[in-house]
Amino acid sequence: MPAQRILSGMRPTGRLHIGHLSVLENWIELQKDNQCFFFAADWHALTTAFEHTAGIKDNVREMVADWLAVGLDPEKSVIFVQSDVPETAELHLLFSMIIPLGWLERVPTYKDQVQQFKQQGRDIMTYGFLGYPVLQAADILLYRADAVPVGEDQLPHLELCRELARRFNHLYRPIFPEPQAKLSRVSVLPGVDGRKMSKSYANDIALMAELDEIRGRVNAMITDPARIRKTDPGHPEVCVVHKYHGIYTGHRLAEIEEDCRAGRVGCVACKKLLAESLEAVLAPLRERRRQITSRPGYVEEVLAEGARRARAEAAKTMAMVREAMQI
Amino acid sequence: MPAQRILSGMRPTGRLHIGHLSVLENWIELQKDNQCFFFAADWHALTTAFEHTAGIKDNVREMVADWLAVGLDPEKSVIFVQSDVPETAELHLLFSMIIPLGWLERVPTYKDQVQQFKQQGRDIMTYGFLGYPVLQAADILLYRADAVPVGEDQLPHLELCRELARRFNHLYRPIFPEPQAKLSRVSVLPGVDGRKMSKSYANDIALMAELDEIRGRVNAMITDPARIRKTDPGHPEVCVVHKYHGIYTGHRLAEIEEDCRAGRVGCVACKKLLAESLEAVLAPLRERRRQITSRPGYVEEVLAEGARRARAEAAKTMAMVREAMQI
Ligand code: SF4
Ligand code: SF4
Repeated sequence: MPAQRILSGMRPTGRLHIGHLSVLENWIELQKDNQCFFFAADWHALTTAFEHTAGIKDNVREMVADWLAVGLDPEKSVIFVQSDVPETAELHLLFSMIIPLGWLERVPTYKDQVQQFKQQGRDIMTYGFLGYPVLQAADILLYRADAVPVGEDQLPHLELCRELARRFNHLYRPIFPEPQAKLSRVSVLPGVDGRKMSKSYANDIALMAELDEIRGRVNAMITDPARIRKTDPGHPEVCVVHKYHGIYTGHRLAEIEEDCRAGRVGCVACKKLLAESLEAVLAPLRERRRQITSRPGYVEEVLAEGARRARAEAAKTMAMVREAMQI
Repeated sequence: MPAQRILSGMRPTGRLHIGHLSVLENWIELQKDNQCFFFAADWHALTTAFEHTAGIKDNVREMVADWLAVGLDPEKSVIFVQSDVPETAELHLLFSMIIPLGWLERVPTYKDQVQQFKQQGRDIMTYGFLGYPVLQAADILLYRADAVPVGEDQLPHLELCRELARRFNHLYRPIFPEPQAKLSRVSVLPGVDGRKMSKSYANDIALMAELDEIRGRVNAMITDPARIRKTDPGHPEVCVVHKYHGIYTGHRLAEIEEDCRAGRVGCVACKKLLAESLEAVLAPLRERRRQITSRPGYVEEVLAEGARRARAEAAKTMAMVREAMQI
């Protein structure tokens, strides 16, 4: 397949957890043969957290340090912060003029999310929250991306972005490619308590967790509640540890399952094995992150250079946009 | 009164008509003792004309040439084009994150205008049209304006801008003054056919009309339909010519009224007098405009310098905004 231009972003949540790893592994895979733009979406963070902006800057730095530790390569890819490219805001404004309100109101996730936040006692029905897909479209089209890695749940947003590209191309001049969805298989790991993994539930395993922390978290994992003694036959399908083995000890999964069902292995030993598997994957990441952190100003340099490259591309697009719109 | 910072803008409609003169006279009065920012609102034009952008650039140039002819002084005031200050789009985006959707939906003019356009068979219900007051607030607050000259009808928009300033100041840090309304008495002149003056009705008198054009337009004015012969007593209160005399021949208005009611003056003579009054006001403007047009690139220079000064001020505000929001 010929090299494509690919764009993807992540909200700055600070240090990442291993739930993010499969997304990042996907990015690293894409970066091999494509021209990738990866950005920290600090403006997007405002749509749901405009009252709590204090940590955003640090969160960006921490997240990007994790990206680099995992293997995003600033020589190959453009790694930048959304708000460092003010052209995004300009394109967002211009798009806002041509996007029918109805398109936004009927995005399926919109009303759901408003409802979800309401249940938490929070009102996020701002103009910007409604317009979230417009900003996302600006992010993507500003770099005239060919493809965007997305999960199933984001398909409606991407479809809206494609519609917007078509509408612009039709109204003015065809300058935007319609970005394709790159559906990526992302393995969703539960938190140690079986719920959705989230820092706010304290049920996550940090990508940069030290061995002690890994052991502690693994020990806290919910196993088959029917097993009292280690000789009781287990049901791995209800066990969080087993889900993790599926990803981190995949080569021995059949054996682990068999031993569990037969009551040949105790949960303590099974967890010890998982902690080792995790350590084998995470130790090299920790080491790379230490190297990154030991170079003062390195992350800032990467982001400054990323911003420079992103803006150069953004400026080209905006020149085309202004010419097409005759404004 | 101490000098204030004042901001006002106008949509680029191309060559202005005399209906715009009282607004401009107000600007010129304000420019004497204040620091004024006057801008051509080309982005605003998109809210209702995104399908027809072809003329916007020329319209900006023509309008600004008229401004200068009338007496806006680029040495004193900052005269610029909205889209030359991309910081506006950034502030607009940030404001969009904190403005509740309900504030916009309940702006009284919003639903009215949507309805009006619908009757003309046009759908303007875009995201940007709903957000028009957000963009307007960004225009104003980007320069931390103390006051804004507005007509009665724009008071709700300004109130929303003030609320937004308070909200920002409360959420983050108090950096925005709440801009005051400078209610300006603007005399609303009807078009020659008695309807609202508008280029699209061809019932306007261009600010730069030549004498022939002035005469033609005045002759086309609707007078008292009850007067058949010049000795018939007239009813100046129903006559468009009389309304114009009120502004352009004010010093002789009592005499004109009396003569009309008494049937002592014919409409032909009365119109001739009005054409002379208009010519007396407009001839010097035409002359100044000829001088302006005779300097190639002059308007562009004024706008480039205006953009430079506007952006310098905008950059200061954005630095304060980013620091306050910690983004
Ligand atoms: S042995 Fe392993 S897979 Fe079986 S229940 Fe215990 S922890 Fe889970
Ligand atoms: S005389 Fe003058 S004011 Fe009276 S109706 Fe004629 S045009 Fe109007």
